[in-house]
Amino acid sequence: METINIGVIGYGYWGPNLVRNFAEVPETQVVAVSDFQPEYLTKVLARYPSIQVTTNCQELFENPKIDAIAIATPVSTHFDLALAALRAGKHVLVSKPITATSAQARQLIEEAYRRQLVLMVDHTFIYTGAVRKIRELIVNQELANIYYYDSVRINLGLFQQDVNVIWDLAVHDLAIMDYVLPSKPVAVSCFGMSHIPGGHENISYLTLLFDTNLIAHIHVSWLAPVKIRRTLIGGEMKMIVYDDLEPSEKVKIYDKGITLTNNPENFYKMMVDYRLGDMLAPQLDITEPLYLEIQHFVDCIKTNNLPITDGQNGLQVVQILEAANQSMQQQGKLIKLKP
Amino acid sequence: METINIGVIGYGYWGPNLVRNFAEVPETQVVAVSDFQPEYLTKVLARYPSIQVTTNCQELFENPKIDAIAIATPVSTHFDLALAALRAGKHVLVSKPITATSAQARQLIEEAYRRQLVLMVDHTFIYTGAVRKIRELIVNQELANIYYYDSVRINLGLFQQDVNVIWDLAVHDLAIMDYVLPSKPVAVSCFGMSHIPGGHENISYLTLLFDTNLIAHIHVSWLAPVKIRRTLIGGEMKMIVYDDLEPSEKVKIYDKGITLTNNPENFYKMMVDYRLGDMLAPQLDITEPLYLEIQHFVDCIKTNNLPITDGQNGLQVVQILEAANQSMQQQGKLIKLKP
Amino acid sequence: METINIGVIGYGYWGPNLVRNFAEVPETQVVAVSDFQPEYLTKVLARYPSIQVTTNCQELFENPKIDAIAIATPVSTHFDLALAALRAGKHVLVSKPITATSAQARQLIEEAYRRQLVLMVDHTFIYTGAVRKIRELIVNQELANIYYYDSVRINLGLFQQDVNVIWDLAVHDLAIMDYVLPSKPVAVSCFGMSHIPGGHENISYLTLLFDTNLIAHIHVSWLAPVKIRRTLIGGEMKMIVYDDLEPSEKVKIYDKGITLTNNPENFYKMMVDYRLGDMLAPQLDITEPLYLEIQHFVDCIKTNNLPITDGQNGLQVVQILEAANQSMQQQGKLIKLKP
Amino acid sequence: METINIGVIGYGYWGPNLVRNFAEVPETQVVAVSDFQPEYLTKVLARYPSIQVTTNCQELFENPKIDAIAIATPVSTHFDLALAALRAGKHVLVSKPITATSAQARQLIEEAYRRQLVLMVDHTFIYTGAVRKIRELIVNQELANIYYYDSVRINLGLFQQDVNVIWDLAVHDLAIMDYVLPSKPVAVSCFGMSHIPGGHENISYLTLLFDTNLIAHIHVSWLAPVKIRRTLIGGEMKMIVYDDLEPSEKVKIYDKGITLTNNPENFYKMMVDYRLGDMLAPQLDITEPLYLEIQHFVDCIKTNNLPITDGQNGLQVVQILEAANQSMQQQGKLIKLKP
Repeated sequence: METINIGVIGYGYWGPNLVRNFAEVPETQVVAVSDFQPEYLTKVLARYPSIQVTTNCQELFENPKIDAIAIATPVSTHFDLALAALRAGKHVLVSKPITATSAQARQLIEEAYRRQLVLMVDHTFIYTGAVRKIRELIVNQELANIYYYDSVRINLGLFQQDVNVIWDLAVHDLAIMDYVLPSKPVAVSCFGMSHIPGGHENISYLTLLFDTNLIAHIHVSWLAPVKIRRTLIGGEMKMIVYDDLEPSEKVKIYDKGITLTNNPENFYKMMVDYRLGDMLAPQLDITEPLYLEIQHFVDCIKTNNLPITDGQNGLQVVQILEAANQSMQQQGKLIKLKP
Repeated sequence: METINIGVIGYGYWGPNLVRNFAEVPETQVVAVSDFQPEYLTKVLARYPSIQVTTNCQELFENPKIDAIAIATPVSTHFDLALAALRAGKHVLVSKPITATSAQARQLIEEAYRRQLVLMVDHTFIYTGAVRKIRELIVNQELANIYYYDSVRINLGLFQQDVNVIWDLAVHDLAIMDYVLPSKPVAVSCFGMSHIPGGHENISYLTLLFDTNLIAHIHVSWLAPVKIRRTLIGGEMKMIVYDDLEPSEKVKIYDKGITLTNNPENFYKMMVDYRLGDMLAPQLDITEPLYLEIQHFVDCIKTNNLPITDGQNGLQVVQILEAANQSMQQQGKLIKLKP
Repeated sequence: METINIGVIGYGYWGPNLVRNFAEVPETQVVAVSDFQPEYLTKVLARYPSIQVTTNCQELFENPKIDAIAIATPVSTHFDLALAALRAGKHVLVSKPITATSAQARQLIEEAYRRQLVLMVDHTFIYTGAVRKIRELIVNQELANIYYYDSVRINLGLFQQDVNVIWDLAVHDLAIMDYVLPSKPVAVSCFGMSHIPGGHENISYLTLLFDTNLIAHIHVSWLAPVKIRRTLIGGEMKMIVYDDLEPSEKVKIYDKGITLTNNPENFYKMMVDYRLGDMLAPQLDITEPLYLEIQHFVDCIKTNNLPITDGQNGLQVVQILEAANQSMQQQGKLIKLKP
Repeated sequence: METINIGVIGYGYWGPNLVRNFAEVPETQVVAVSDFQPEYLTKVLARYPSIQVTTNCQELFENPKIDAIAIATPVSTHFDLALAALRAGKHVLVSKPITATSAQARQLIEEAYRRQLVLMVDHTFIYTGAVRKIRELIVNQELANIYYYDSVRINLGLFQQDVNVIWDLAVHDLAIMDYVLPSKPVAVSCFGMSHIPGGHENISYLTLLFDTNLIAHIHVSWLAPVKIRRTLIGGEMKMIVYDDLEPSEKVKIYDKGITLTNNPENFYKMMVDYRLGDMLAPQLDITEPLYLEIQHFVDCIKTNNLPITDGQNGLQVVQILEAANQSMQQQGKLIKLKP
């Protein structure tokens, strides 16, 4: 079997993780890295002297040895770079969110489809043992009806220059929800606030409505004194707490809930009773998710299958982010999502 | 100095705490307790054989020895009971929220004012060491400008029969905000969902806007697998984490924040830098808050002063709850609050 | 069925809990309380006006209506009070540790045996849902061979006047071990230190050896800045973490361990591999343990059966404490325990 | 200034960290790595193609370009390798513990002294921001008299082949104690148990006595279901909790303690009162400790100064480990330590 040759664009925060994992996956090798900043390229050479480096990403598109391009640059550049890569006949793995607009995402999907190339978005969380376990529990109906999905993703974080906090952080939750929930949201309301003059929103609250009585809510912030990465998923039969900062018990499954009672009502009596049971923290696969993701990218290239996190998945997330931005500009006005 | 004689109406969940604390405060004594349920009265007698009990609260209003009435009954009954007590010339301490409507609250305030009686609402959290310390920090400008107030108050809780979850739980946060924040909210948006056929909303997300770039948000739920009581208050200079479930370090003050930088911008650089410093968990007064609250009630009766948690304070909270209900019925529509 | 009439001696820290629970258990009622301190008796009367109070405990022994005596006084007084009670024909429930010496414990056991009276020691932890669950797991061989029992029981605690920290705190662990472990210790080594001039040891480390490769260790302290109540029990198949401060998941069962491997050895290779599995936190009975303990006391009185925490159990614990004291005075010298 | 050329022996668990940090420190560069296992050398080449690799460490000693040797091999090989390196005129940085016996450590110290070479032991924790802060607090007398030092260092860990758990884990605590405590232990008692046929002790309890009323205790285990890295240091004025697993608040300083009271004694009264105050978690330097350690190694080579963690420091730790082993073989017999 032949090795797939990779070009990586962008060696800032995420690029080094891509290069390291592409180097470790047996079927791939990185042949070139490009970045605007020469000092980042020096770092590449220090660690991987055999990789070619350039400040001009055009060289990667033109390099006939390169089979696939991984893009780890600011969001505003995703579209141009991914489109150029596809047009040069390269498969593409692009950082989240896939593009800055849903129109751009649609164009990339079309381009990849026409050229029979793999277009995959780097929604890394989808490949974690925790998220895969949660999906398995939900698919197996262990929670029965799902009542709510609540995520808090906050810390004292890097203020991004080209996007606000929902495009930086809520994107993770939207990708996870798209993967684990059985239905799609139909409307979104979003509030956000900027505390930097002229800056993007750095704290935001996003509510998603569905056709059922499921409600989803995402709180993201770059301005919290403590780091929290905690998702609660409440179901009719069971409830899940997914705490990504727990070293070993990231997913806890509570056999808890409520049951309707038929007690004759009276002045103080409630209509419902608790149901309390065991809590189980299942053993999770701890393989590095980016490693699994790259293996999946390779498989899709070889089999010509659609990735789990394909362009359509990236588009779905961007559509919600666009609607959330629209809502945020109108002080939380409820925005309908197109099916 | 004379003892203040107390009548307590309602001996369900909260009433026993009232009776116990009125018994411990030296200047008060409970002379009578009423409840619809004879079995609750049996419990009163088992513990306090000298207290008179009755299923008819009218007897308390008519008892000339009783100086003040404490009401711990469902919300829907607060107005009638408090009004009757005031008209009988009794001072009133009423459970939160003060009434089921703002019109009722206004009428009680007027009645108390006309009769020169103390009308106090039992917003217990205001009397905790934690909340008093937070107010002190904010009043002393230790946080400088306040950027956000975020509260999560969830657990597998008792479904109330006559109110939804915001009237049961968010009421605490609204009372605390009213006490510690330097400004009042100007608009509210609220989403909620019921997961019991015909039941009140059991999960809710409430956003409050202000005239400044302060944003407040409250997440309340009766349907969470874990108990969380955590408030984050972010300021320009410092940030506070108030975790009411921490046994001894309930308030943590983080000397953290962001600072604007003048670095020449480039492709990846952010406009802001972190500021990281020490964390301090101050020693807090651990006197039972209800004890302090009752002492304050006594002081107000004796000095004819307005309580910290007076009718006006109760009204302010009910106005927001009413607007939140209104917003919830219109899928989060932003509702302006009257000044 | 007739009510069992109770006299309680000592109304300091623990006495009020005894009185409250004896009042709540349907088959018992407290008829008299004695204490040296008149102000404590005032508290009894304030809450329970129908209970007789006295500063002279002799009156309880002489009261023919009293069937059983509960003793909640300093350790040094246990023997005299319990002996007098037994000689007066009363059943006895005595606080832990049962007596100040093993000789005293033996004499009480004999006296109770001769008079056919129930002698029970108040090892409250034995009646908690957590400890009962742990015993069940061990009895059912879920852990297979037990490798270690490790307990840490520390906080900024009340310095006792008549006993050192092991007689105050390690007594709990020794009682629990006696109840849950399949074998008895054969030797003890103990180190302790006093940081108060002339005071008893306020920090101590106690090691227990068995006939197998089980090792037990108890760390107790009155001088720790944080409260810890955590026991680890390691078995061949499973391991338990019992954290008494966890609000709802006090017992966690880890399906973890080690397995011997047959890999050809080499320079860096280890002989053993981990085994990692799920963690389960079983739902526990949350009935107040003192309530269950008193019900058991009543049962034993009625059926003339030996209690779970009988005199023999109390003696076993005191023997180890005596040996530990002896070891502590000889700088940790290993002291053999008599079978 | 000239670059210091480094040879690294051993590329198993710790070697890659050494190579990475030597590569990042500006004044050092790794020129050669040796390991018995060819597959480890393949890993070196994959990351650092310019580094020479060999399975014969003799080549490193003979390489005239190499100024210093870093040794990251099993303990049993430390002495031979370090001695050979010193005799070849190379400075030495050797993993902990420095040697397998104190006699060996003394010989290395002498050899390094005679040849004017730097001999440094890799007690990495000494260079963490947490341990440096603790030493600063103790040196500045903020705790006043120190009452106890208690460390728990347990997890489901790698069973070592050539040493028991105290040589693997307690070595860290002994090095930290040597660095932060104002006095040296005078005697040691140690219990340990093996749960693998023919294996080394995998759980151990080590008690250290001093000339004062300071007591130290270390609990180490490779067989715990949860990971704990927690040290309590109790002083007369303040107490420290150092939890190495806390992401950001590793060191907490409690303004807590006890004070003697002059209250007239009575039946229940204690002789001491608590003192409760604030808790402070100071901001710590988060530079990677190995980076700082290597910078210090370079400084010592250039200035010919003794390192903080010099041979003497390594010897001190090994002497205690030897005495602990001796005690363990005699069931905890107290072993005097030579001054």
